[in-house]
Amino acid sequence: MGIELQNHQSHQEEASPAEDPVSRWLISTPEPPTMWQELVKYTRTNVLSKKRNKKKNSSSSNRIYSFLKSVFPILNWGRQYKIKMFKKDLMAGLTLASLCIPQSIGYANLAGLDPEYGLYTSVVPPLIYSTMGSSRELAIGPVAVVSLLLSSMVRDLQDPITDPIAYRKIVYTVTFFAGAFQAIFGLFRLGFLVDFLSHAALVGFMAGAAIVIGLQQLKGLFGLSHFTNKTDVVSVLSSVFHSLHHPWQPLNFVIGSSFLIFILLARFIGKKYKKLFWIPAMAPLISVVLATLIVYLTNAETRGVKIVKHIKPGFNRPSVNQLQFNSPQLGHIAKIGLISAIIALTEAIAVGRSFATIKGYRLDGNKEMMALGFSNIAGSLTSCYVATGSFSRTAVNFSAGCETVVSNIVMAITVMVSLEVLTRFLYFTPTAILASIILSALPGLIDISGALHIWKLDKLDFLVLIAAFLGVLFASVEVGLLLAVGISFARIMLSSIRPNIEALGRLSKTDIFGDVNQYPMAIKTQGLLTLRISSPLLCFANANFIRDRILKSVGEVEEEEDEQEVKTDNAIQVVILDMSCVMGVDTSGVVALEELHQELASNNIRLVIASPRWRVLHKLKRAKLEEKVKEENIFMTVGEAVDTYLRVRTTSHDLC
Amino acid sequence: MGIELQNHQSHQEEASPAEDPVSRWLISTPEPPTMWQELVKYTRTNVLSKKRNKKKNSSSSNRIYSFLKSVFPILNWGRQYKIKMFKKDLMAGLTLASLCIPQSIGYANLAGLDPEYGLYTSVVPPLIYSTMGSSRELAIGPVAVVSLLLSSMVRDLQDPITDPIAYRKIVYTVTFFAGAFQAIFGLFRLGFLVDFLSHAALVGFMAGAAIVIGLQQLKGLFGLSHFTNKTDVVSVLSSVFHSLHHPWQPLNFVIGSSFLIFILLARFIGKKYKKLFWIPAMAPLISVVLATLIVYLTNAETRGVKIVKHIKPGFNRPSVNQLQFNSPQLGHIAKIGLISAIIALTEAIAVGRSFATIKGYRLDGNKEMMALGFSNIAGSLTSCYVATGSFSRTAVNFSAGCETVVSNIVMAITVMVSLEVLTRFLYFTPTAILASIILSALPGLIDISGALHIWKLDKLDFLVLIAAFLGVLFASVEVGLLLAVGISFARIMLSSIRPNIEALGRLSKTDIFGDVNQYPMAIKTQGLLTLRISSPLLCFANANFIRDRILKSVGEVEEEEDEQEVKTDNAIQVVILDMSCVMGVDTSGVVALEELHQELASNNIRLVIASPRWRVLHKLKRAKLEEKVKEENIFMTVGEAVDTYLRVRTTSHDLC
Repeated sequence: MGIELQNHQSHQEEASPAEDPVSRWLISTPEPPTMWQELVKYTRTNVLSKKRNKKKNSSSSNRIYSFLKSVFPILNWGRQYKIKMFKKDLMAGLTLASLCIPQSIGYANLAGLDPEYGLYTSVVPPLIYSTMGSSRELAIGPVAVVSLLLSSMVRDLQDPITDPIAYRKIVYTVTFFAGAFQAIFGLFRLGFLVDFLSHAALVGFMAGAAIVIGLQQLKGLFGLSHFTNKTDVVSVLSSVFHSLHHPWQPLNFVIGSSFLIFILLARFIGKKYKKLFWIPAMAPLISVVLATLIVYLTNAETRGVKIVKHIKPGFNRPSVNQLQFNSPQLGHIAKIGLISAIIALTEAIAVGRSFATIKGYRLDGNKEMMALGFSNIAGSLTSCYVATGSFSRTAVNFSAGCETVVSNIVMAITVMVSLEVLTRFLYFTPTAILASIILSALPGLIDISGALHIWKLDKLDFLVLIAAFLGVLFASVEVGLLLAVGISFARIMLSSIRPNIEALGRLSKTDIFGDVNQYPMAIKTQGLLTLRISSPLLCFANANFIRDRILKSVGEVEEEEDEQEVKTDNAIQVVILDMSCVMGVDTSGVVALEELHQELASNNIRLVIASPRWRVLHKLKRAKLEEKVKEENIFMTVGEAVDTYLRVRTTSHDLC
Repeated sequence: MGIELQNHQSHQEEASPAEDPVSRWLISTPEPPTMWQELVKYTRTNVLSKKRNKKKNSSSSNRIYSFLKSVFPILNWGRQYKIKMFKKDLMAGLTLASLCIPQSIGYANLAGLDPEYGLYTSVVPPLIYSTMGSSRELAIGPVAVVSLLLSSMVRDLQDPITDPIAYRKIVYTVTFFAGAFQAIFGLFRLGFLVDFLSHAALVGFMAGAAIVIGLQQLKGLFGLSHFTNKTDVVSVLSSVFHSLHHPWQPLNFVIGSSFLIFILLARFIGKKYKKLFWIPAMAPLISVVLATLIVYLTNAETRGVKIVKHIKPGFNRPSVNQLQFNSPQLGHIAKIGLISAIIALTEAIAVGRSFATIKGYRLDGNKEMMALGFSNIAGSLTSCYVATGSFSRTAVNFSAGCETVVSNIVMAITVMVSLEVLTRFLYFTPTAILASIILSALPGLIDISGALHIWKLDKLDFLVLIAAFLGVLFASVEVGLLLAVGISFARIMLSSIRPNIEALGRLSKTDIFGDVNQYPMAIKTQGLLTLRISSPLLCFANANFIRDRILKSVGEVEEEEDEQEVKTDNAIQVVILDMSCVMGVDTSGVVALEELHQELASNNIRLVIASPRWRVLHKLKRAKLEEKVKEENIFMTVGEAVDTYLRVRTTSHDLC
């Protein structure tokens, strides 16, 4: 019935062409909201909480409670928490802790800090996150990429070997800034900032970082003493080759590589038999325990095996007094904080979202930012460095069947206990084992199939990926990021600066007008040139280009006709400009349209504007351009404009 | 007849709905060109000369000649040049010279150079330009804004008072770079770079620069000796107040201000009686001659009147050896060259285009860039600084009735002669008179009505204007430019990052679907949500936003229906995504569409894609998204999609 009604309607419309839709609809459109009104609306819907407005009628205590529930999701699910769920969470948390302890020590080493600081970072941030975060799987703590990033950037300000205390102070301050930036992003709903690092850039960046981290581990694996501070491949490799000329201790390499093989074997088994997921998860801890025992029992440390040595026992110490807000390098520190904040968020949200999708719920990016931000702020006050969601541990958490963030709490408590109990034991842990644990985590960061998929789908995205990869590898982390973001944005800019101007043709027997390149069967009407501007803005950056391109198109069509020696009767008389994709126009755009109108008029060509949008129409009215182009040359659709022109021509032919 | 045919056609179409246009047209579209093919095509049409391809058949000597003609337009018009035209050009050239000589001396002073360098700059660049330029009115030489820009930026590298020779060397090098950049822009058709400085930014920048220049002239007007090097208002004003506490020579002020009044009066007369245009044009020269005579006859220089003193007589000297390509500051010098190049080009092309429009011809921006570039390169080798098209002198040239660039040649020769003859006379010229000549040229740079027009038309453009204005005024020329360009681009970025997602409705009795905000009379079909994405790219920067907004819209509609307690029968069953404005999609965009499809599917909502464009459709096919969404859910138009849905619903109702 619907289609019949439709037929009837359009028939009616065609039967009464006297009733001009232009005057009926186009002119009667309401004024678009002003910039100010839109700004107010945006602020109201995006920055201020919307939910509070809705619950106007409820009592104030209820409102406070619902506000608290929105900030602390634990209040929501905590009441429905059951003992059955806790069993699962307990198991997951313990598995998580067994992976987390060796990884934390290794990553702390990568970050240029003593081992206990990695463990601290696995205590406070997960506890804070568990009250505020909305992901159920995300395992919070130190991660490889952020550790590398932090050490490579903070090292420029302060060498960790010459003055570890000053270095730590800067790290805390960076962590504070990272947390503050993350919280601010969440508070002001600036979640889109995370999107600036596209998926392709992230794949390239992660792969580059993984290789750089891997090369850095050669120091631990070979037990080298002298090593470069730089992170690029050339410096690291030359440093390795240089060091190998000096005497080195092969025992380190034997221990490290044999346990690396053990961990990789465990992972292979875990991948083959999904139920045995706990084998790869436990392998690092087993390696640490075994290696430590071996060193302890054989006194291998006397034979050149480097060991972790003293780890301070006890819980996190407060570090409020160590924040360096008076530092002359504060600007630089804040910049490092900003970069770390974005990288940490990007990783956490990417990981969190992919697992949320598997379980069928959605993560609110802004809330996640708030949760991670406060976790890191709290961390910076309790001797932690930047924490975020770890990919490898989140996967283990998921496989271990976690139900809620309680698994994070279990993990944090386990780490806390081990800080009290295990530190003495960790004295004899060989550093080579830490290197092999980090190395074993790296293949997960290199997503070759993802890169291939990107190559197939979008060559420019692949360029971004390669730029990020090579930038990280051969220059520095910052250069890699800058290149990737730069290319990504250059592409967006290019589409605005050099928009497509497409010639349209009618698809036979319909009212549909399509790009003649896309639809080669589309028919151009003689004497008419229909062009579509494919840019959301007709503005300073493209107005001249668009005007010139349109004039050039007119010239080309006329030249073709000259060559074909068609009678002058068919020369272009009307240029129809389909502005259906143009959302806004600025002063330069208005000037360009005026000039276009004048130039065409001086060649006896009429400029017709089809389907102008709300704001564009309003601007044209304001600029009095409407009067120049004349109202009868503004149409609601291309089809209408073409039909009107055909009618006029037919009439004038009849008159001749 | 045309309209009748049309009616007939669309009738036929509706009569046979079984013939599905989707399968007929959408699927049979050819493959879009690859990125590489497009790049080759772009290079061929834009970078390589197109004209040469066309004249393949002509002999090689002819080809060389036509190439030369395209580079040196003088070969074209020179042969048709008539004695009658020369008479007009001679008069215009002499008038131009009378304005040019005092202005050049003044601007050289503003640029921190000795007076003769301003005169040099009015000799070589205009001569080169006259062979290569395509504008007939543009008067080439030193201009106020570029002089200010140059001195304010080069001063950071070298103080002109302590070592004028080193300062000059840097100025020549900057000029060389400016010319080289301009020539490169022209050669590689990078004309769009000039567009980056929008009209609004230019208005604000010019006004700010005019005020800064005016304040700088207080030094000359009051005959002050100590003055700040900075260009911001605060520094200059405090410097003026500071200096006024010291003894100053009121005679300077008397001479300067009385001749300023004389020049302004002359301009007022010239504006009132258009035929007397030569009075304001001659006024500066008359002022110089009179003031010089007065000083010479009354020995006023002994009573504290500051005079120009020695000017080296003779033509331009070569300065090839003085270019500083080995300078350690080369990067900085090149940067100054780039900024000067862009500002100079923007001014020249804006001025040239506006006069070309009056005379009814078009300027080729790329050729103008080449001409100005080579003029400046030649200038840098012959003791000139950056020259460009002057607004005030071009207006005088136009009023004086110039026919071709020969007026520039006449002017250059006159200046050359005066360099030989007049320099001795200029010894006694008071510096106050130079200040008043510059001051008198400034009101032309402040375009208040233009600013008002921008305010009326576009508030964001006005913000750009104000940012440029205040930036120049209170910070520096560079900050002002950076702010203006930054805001302009932020706006473009914003439209890509936060595109509009509009709900569409059918305009009654038509097949037209319009934004329900623009057309409040548009009718939404129950059970359907039709949304249009108004962004040319569905990419990393907006994919998450677009997906979330669409899901939010779906949620809102359902909430509304819940509130109104409408029967569940009318809940949203189909989301139609109008992608007619989306030109491209990257990997993030594909992922977002996939997620959207999944999420909607899990709520039993069908995702329908309407009017996908060429490249988008191709990408969806590549990503196998087409298979997931299913081919029958991709339609050529929104109308078709809606009708199909209505038909399905009707059929199922009938079955019930």
